[in-house]
Amino acid sequence: FFNNCFFVIIILYYIGSSCSKTDTIPEKSGSSSGFLGNLLVVPMDGSHWVGIKAIAQEMGRRGHRVTVVIPEISIRMGPGKYYDTITYPVPYDRDYMDFVMTSHKDILEKSSQPFMEKMKKMFSQIQKITNLLHTTAESLLFNASLISHLAQQNFDAVLTDPMVPTGLIVAHKLGIPTINLLRGVPCSLDMKASGCPSPPSFVPRFFTGYTDRMNFKERVINTLVALLEPLFCRLMPKDLGNNEEMCVKLEFSCDSVHTRIDFTLEFPRPLMPNVILVGGINCKVRNPLPEDLASWLSGEHGFVVFTLGTMVSEMPDYITSTFLDAFSQIPQKVIWRYTGKFPSRIPDNVKIMKWVPQNDLLGTHPGVRAFITHAGSHGTFEGLCHGVPMVLVPLAAEQPDNAQKIASRGAGIVLDITSVTTETLLKGLNEVINDPRYKENIQKLSALHNDRPIDPLDLSVFWTEFVMQHKGAKHLRPAFHDLYWFQYYSLDVMAVLATVLLVFVALTFKCLKLCLRKLSRKKKQE
Amino acid sequence: FFNNCFFVIIILYYIGSSCSKTDTIPEKSGSSSGFLGNLLVVPMDGSHWVGIKAIAQEMGRRGHRVTVVIPEISIRMGPGKYYDTITYPVPYDRDYMDFVMTSHKDILEKSSQPFMEKMKKMFSQIQKITNLLHTTAESLLFNASLISHLAQQNFDAVLTDPMVPTGLIVAHKLGIPTINLLRGVPCSLDMKASGCPSPPSFVPRFFTGYTDRMNFKERVINTLVALLEPLFCRLMPKDLGNNEEMCVKLEFSCDSVHTRIDFTLEFPRPLMPNVILVGGINCKVRNPLPEDLASWLSGEHGFVVFTLGTMVSEMPDYITSTFLDAFSQIPQKVIWRYTGKFPSRIPDNVKIMKWVPQNDLLGTHPGVRAFITHAGSHGTFEGLCHGVPMVLVPLAAEQPDNAQKIASRGAGIVLDITSVTTETLLKGLNEVINDPRYKENIQKLSALHNDRPIDPLDLSVFWTEFVMQHKGAKHLRPAFHDLYWFQYYSLDVMAVLATVLLVFVALTFKCLKLCLRKLSRKKKQE
Repeated sequence: FFNNCFFVIIILYYIGSSCSKTDTIPEKSGSSSGFLGNLLVVPMDGSHWVGIKAIAQEMGRRGHRVTVVIPEISIRMGPGKYYDTITYPVPYDRDYMDFVMTSHKDILEKSSQPFMEKMKKMFSQIQKITNLLHTTAESLLFNASLISHLAQQNFDAVLTDPMVPTGLIVAHKLGIPTINLLRGVPCSLDMKASGCPSPPSFVPRFFTGYTDRMNFKERVINTLVALLEPLFCRLMPKDLGNNEEMCVKLEFSCDSVHTRIDFTLEFPRPLMPNVILVGGINCKVRNPLPEDLASWLSGEHGFVVFTLGTMVSEMPDYITSTFLDAFSQIPQKVIWRYTGKFPSRIPDNVKIMKWVPQNDLLGTHPGVRAFITHAGSHGTFEGLCHGVPMVLVPLAAEQPDNAQKIASRGAGIVLDITSVTTETLLKGLNEVINDPRYKENIQKLSALHNDRPIDPLDLSVFWTEFVMQHKGAKHLRPAFHDLYWFQYYSLDVMAVLATVLLVFVALTFKCLKLCLRKLSRKKKQE
Repeated sequence: FFNNCFFVIIILYYIGSSCSKTDTIPEKSGSSSGFLGNLLVVPMDGSHWVGIKAIAQEMGRRGHRVTVVIPEISIRMGPGKYYDTITYPVPYDRDYMDFVMTSHKDILEKSSQPFMEKMKKMFSQIQKITNLLHTTAESLLFNASLISHLAQQNFDAVLTDPMVPTGLIVAHKLGIPTINLLRGVPCSLDMKASGCPSPPSFVPRFFTGYTDRMNFKERVINTLVALLEPLFCRLMPKDLGNNEEMCVKLEFSCDSVHTRIDFTLEFPRPLMPNVILVGGINCKVRNPLPEDLASWLSGEHGFVVFTLGTMVSEMPDYITSTFLDAFSQIPQKVIWRYTGKFPSRIPDNVKIMKWVPQNDLLGTHPGVRAFITHAGSHGTFEGLCHGVPMVLVPLAAEQPDNAQKIASRGAGIVLDITSVTTETLLKGLNEVINDPRYKENIQKLSALHNDRPIDPLDLSVFWTEFVMQHKGAKHLRPAFHDLYWFQYYSLDVMAVLATVLLVFVALTFKCLKLCLRKLSRKKKQE
């Protein structure tokens, strides 16, 4: 069960986080340090591709040689203007991938089937994706000719997403440093790998939905989650080196960890010096809106952007009609990204498109009033960067956490997708659009978030170049890696100190007793 | 005793760290954000003035209104081109200050007087400086008309050095956020105030001289120091609000803490998000060397720079002659900053000056071979930035720690000032000058240190502007400030969990016992 649970997380992470596209990148001046290197990129598919691709493109544009290794069949990974691509064969085809992707719909289906039946369906779906990830990783790692080809290329470093440790293992095989780009890894594996303490008293754990200000009960649960996390991670399948020790060991080799978080959303907590914050790496407005779209969107009441990420390629009819019902009752126009079957009756103020320039819509058009999002990390950051109040419909993975973070700042409203009704949706939309506090709060947050000394993409590129040029960043690697866990927590030291104290107290006590006895004897003799 | 001990530290910190001057600053483009604010600066004297002044100057140069509040009489604080100065009267004069400064010499004196006599002298000296600091702080804080004048100026924030909490108290009185610039505070008060965990298993404590890789014995001592630190700080005089709770409480209001450290020197450890690393803020080469000095320094063997900081305004003769003896036996020229009485016989290759452009000497002249320094934090960073191998003669405060950090990287040699002989000095100089490993190691470190995405002075200015513009940086303030210490360490949660576990075990045990008894009774009945 745990095993499967873990994979729910992994998978929803894998596919679910966002739907923004970053195919074009801004023009920048060339490499600042004059150093030109050779970078290997082992990306992950789905929304994880967004940030990695942005860095790969920018590195290539600055004159570095960049090679991206991707499977023949993938959801969205592909070639780009500034990097070379090497593809490797996988034992599945496009149809199978599409089949896996569309069967997500079943999980959202309001069915009359019994609970156990539904759970079984869910786990079967999870199993499918787990197998897909597994097969993809094996196809690269056991491709001896490809690995030996890569070994001959004299790469300076590997840029990867450590959600599945394929890239870490490749780097390990090639003996070169890695740069990780991640949003976070379940079981706080990323924190553990960096040796960073996370006091459960004010660092809420993933998936709890807590803020940094917890009451006693919440702190008890948060502490329990923190204590049980390692157990949870020990139950991962071991054949891919996917178990805790292996992961942590592999992450030792990470010289620089780029985390897609930012403290305007994240609650303040300690970080290690090799962790670089690049939340909002995807926020730069890239293109003006197509003219016909821009003019359709114009109107005194403005418009709402509605996307639920690549995960929801298709939705059950009952959800679709709930949303359409609500939309038909608001004065705003609605632009909706949806790849499933189009509903038969679409209100006049709604435009459904297979793909929308989400970031540009949020960032360039003054008419934007609200953003209905599943709170994937990219989408959440785009809403934040551009100061658009949100209606958050989290589906899975870290999305409830993201949603909670926006809501706890008074910058959005959270709705539950499985119980959403036309009324609750209308109420939510009305509130974020018409109550000025939401706009004010998100714009204050946005101002804090955007006011930073260096653009997150430039920062990513800087540290990637740093690791390549200096052959790692060993000076940022904490000595904790050489310690056993009981040494890390100073348990051995505490044991010795406690023993010394006990012996001292015992001896003093004995001594006193002896003295008293002698004294009383003397008295008796007198 | 502890009380005095603490003040040894405070005082040596206060005066001892460096001797570099930063009177001119580089030309930069104006304020990046367009925001222009009103900054109050409450600096500390001695080397602590260096960084604060650099930020004040640069802020003023970018168009902000900057007001620096300093005592009438000070060691080195004074007006600058880009800021206004307000001076306040103090009940001591220049002569008294000079008298306090020169009496440091007595501590270094190799005297035949008994140990206790010497200690008494030392503590009397410490008492003098403590009183001076105390009087200075009172002169500002109890100057009602000045404080009310400041209150009327509508400052956006206070930039200060929290070594003595005068600036923190002023900010508290005016109800505005503070920006701290510091190298570190004894008893890890700075870490404590930020709520940052510092596991003693790999975070060496101040003044232990340990690295991050400690053996068992060292870890025991480090843990003991960590445990006793709070005790140590509780012994500070309380009338100025200088005790631990007060300090920590005041530092709560710090919205951004600029720490003059860098992980090329510091051992990797967790940091809180409002801590900004600006180590090397003083390293920018500002001026070309005066022509006569540059030509005197030229020669095939290069030269050595020798400075021991403002603390040692005068040295006992026996130390002076040891150094001169050694210098007369090396082919390099030596440039020595010394404000005391010049020795009667000076070798030809030695030039003694009352002030030297230390940073420019280390940074611009290709002939520099070695740097003899007391390992004050500014000097250490200047040696590091410019890649000059060092002979380190730490005197006090955090200097032994700085020296140890350079030495542990194979970039310098540490000598003990009280036992230094011509032979050990010669051996040390020969090693760092002629063994190429020292040069290689410091240059590797230097490359790492200098390769950063943004100049430390620009970074300081950025975050100062950030705090001024956004009226603080509350989003970076950890929730730990609302927790009691036992909540922070989750001791209450642990107690409850342990109780539940104990009750559960006890009940299970009781239950089993009961069952067994019943069973055995039944058997007996059978």
